[in-house]
Amino acid sequence: MLIDKKFTLHERLEKDSFLLTSLDLCQVRLINNSDYTWLILVPQKNNIIHLTDLNSAEQIQLIKEINHISTILKKLYTPDRLNIATLGNVVSQMHWHIIVRYTTDKHWPNPVWGRDFTPYSNHELQKTLATLQNAL
Amino acid sequence: MLIDKKFTLHERLEKDSFLLTSLDLCQVRLINNSDYTWLILVPQKNNIIHLTDLNSAEQIQLIKEINHISTILKKLYTPDRLNIATLGNVVSQMHWHIIVRYTTDKHWPNPVWGRDFTPYSNHELQKTLATLQNAL
Repeated sequence: MLIDKKFTLHERLEKDSFLLTSLDLCQVRLINNSDYTWLILVPQKNNIIHLTDLNSAEQIQLIKEINHISTILKKLYTPDRLNIATLGNVVSQMHWHIIVRYTTDKHWPNPVWGRDFTPYSNHELQKTLATLQNAL
Repeated sequence: MLIDKKFTLHERLEKDSFLLTSLDLCQVRLINNSDYTWLILVPQKNNIIHLTDLNSAEQIQLIKEINHISTILKKLYTPDRLNIATLGNVVSQMHWHIIVRYTTDKHWPNPVWGRDFTPYSNHELQKTLATLQNAL
């Protein structure tokens, strides 16, 4: 599996999130919203919008990486649910959300998209990045 | 891959959707909301909540079936986006949404969950079921 050497991340995703690590297919990034532990996985290939734009091997790698990140988030945070989704309604570049949800969280049981972000404080951000990068 | 012989569909999913077909892993069902062409894929195994509850072979089958349904929906409806997601906030039994979205649709660019359904008329329903079952 080759990622695009000249892969370009959409500027909105760049602005809204922090790089955690790069897997074989996807960049793993933390969304700057302290209301939720909210990661995105972005396949490092240009011009990918629909799932069907990835070939079969890439799709299998994608589900493996989603499972890998889900396993880590379950261990670290014991969520009631993990919301996993690709929407692309705002940023068309394919990105998969994996969001830690609790029955007690701010918007439960509603979805979290299209709401205001509460950016991390510098202290919280460093702590969260360290916790996640340590586990990845 | 063996599906559970005594697989039981959650009553809320049963009530809100119509069976289209059964694939190797998932039931494919049409959600009774004429605002959107909205399908769900339900792995026919009991006690599956998180993605990590499926084994590796089942996860690979799942992404293949999501791709298969996505390909059919793209051909039939030429969507601007397909929203693909598993949330489980309301019904915990794992089900994957695949929803045809257009930039001109009722709630664009917001997600469609947690809103009122507009049930199909009998005529519309028969037409939609026939179109989808013919393509599946």
